[in-house]
Amino acid sequence: MAFDGDDTLWHSETYFALTQQRFTALLSPWCDPGETADRLLTRERDNLQSFGYGVKGFALSMIETAIEASGGSIPSAALGEIVDWARQMMDHPVDLLDGVEETLDGLQGRYPLLIITKGDLFHQESKVAASGLVERFESVHIVSEKDPQTYGRIVAGLDLTSPDQFLMVGNSARSDIEPVLAIGGQAVHVPHDITWALEHAKVTPEVPVLEHLTDLLQLL
Amino acid sequence: MAFDGDDTLWHSETYFALTQQRFTALLSPWCDPGETADRLLTRERDNLQSFGYGVKGFALSMIETAIEASGGSIPSAALGEIVDWARQMMDHPVDLLDGVEETLDGLQGRYPLLIITKGDLFHQESKVAASGLVERFESVHIVSEKDPQTYGRIVAGLDLTSPDQFLMVGNSARSDIEPVLAIGGQAVHVPHDITWALEHAKVTPEVPVLEHLTDLLQLL
Repeated sequence: MAFDGDDTLWHSETYFALTQQRFTALLSPWCDPGETADRLLTRERDNLQSFGYGVKGFALSMIETAIEASGGSIPSAALGEIVDWARQMMDHPVDLLDGVEETLDGLQGRYPLLIITKGDLFHQESKVAASGLVERFESVHIVSEKDPQTYGRIVAGLDLTSPDQFLMVGNSARSDIEPVLAIGGQAVHVPHDITWALEHAKVTPEVPVLEHLTDLLQLL
Repeated sequence: MAFDGDDTLWHSETYFALTQQRFTALLSPWCDPGETADRLLTRERDNLQSFGYGVKGFALSMIETAIEASGGSIPSAALGEIVDWARQMMDHPVDLLDGVEETLDGLQGRYPLLIITKGDLFHQESKVAASGLVERFESVHIVSEKDPQTYGRIVAGLDLTSPDQFLMVGNSARSDIEPVLAIGGQAVHVPHDITWALEHAKVTPEVPVLEHLTDLLQLL
């Protein structure tokens, strides 16, 4: 049984959303909030193939958006603030979601537990270490993309007779559910309050959707 | 037998150095080249614990250095150029060092070969894939730091009776040689023309130093 990290075990999108609020305020002399959001999302989507996921790419996308949206008139010191926000996000202590420890306690010894988390290697390793959860997991897999190939490779390395013995628990339909179903695995969806627009996807009806991670114990 | 990636199998520091030349030129209205280099190195060292290794952290450090060194008077559009350079570095095709394929050809079948490379997961995975070398290696390990713990973990996962059966080949004394000796492994140093100041270290006299990677075949 594998768990996603960001917004399944610990908070992540909350900090992106808070930073984006500060960014919206910074750009308010030039853009209304809707335009800022649209411009940033477009820039993030374009940059994804060059910079990948994570805080540093987010910061670089905000900087480019700010220059473009202000027609180059934003003072460079304001762009320095954006780098500061990135540093704060990277250094932020890890906040576990409610019920995570209780849920893992209930699963301990019943199934081998894995973490499969996507994004910046350095930041994800820091978060895994700071979570205090690492001893509860048999292995931790930090990957650059969660596609069927990635899951296929991880599942092939496990001692399973069939991929349907693999269960993934996560908040992102696009990253935690769809590619797992594609390789014949099982998935449980525990949506988070906030989901990044680039992670939106439809969840197939046969996948259990839980309101809280603790509901997992009852489902199993 | 494990190989480092950056500046052992493929060029990396060359692109950092070229970008730093452009950065020095960009800051020339405010700073002489020596001061720019000092300021940037200080900023990179300070940022390492927040941002880790790699191009994106380098770009964020350049942006902060530019704002600081210009007293905030550098136009924001110039900072946008820095983000562009980062994108160019991330998207740059992989250039193998001379003799890499020939050396790997000579080793094929004689030893199981590994890559152990440090830095940004997304960028390193892209480089491994673009190198065209992946089929020659039994496994690829992308790590956030090359310390004795990291090497110890990798070596423990290999089918060896003792760590001295493990040989690391790399260009960085600090990352590829010292921590490997610390866990009782063997190392071969193949220095690169350019070494980042934060990778400088003394090489212990008992380690073979080769001028070219191809000399490895004769040494073995």
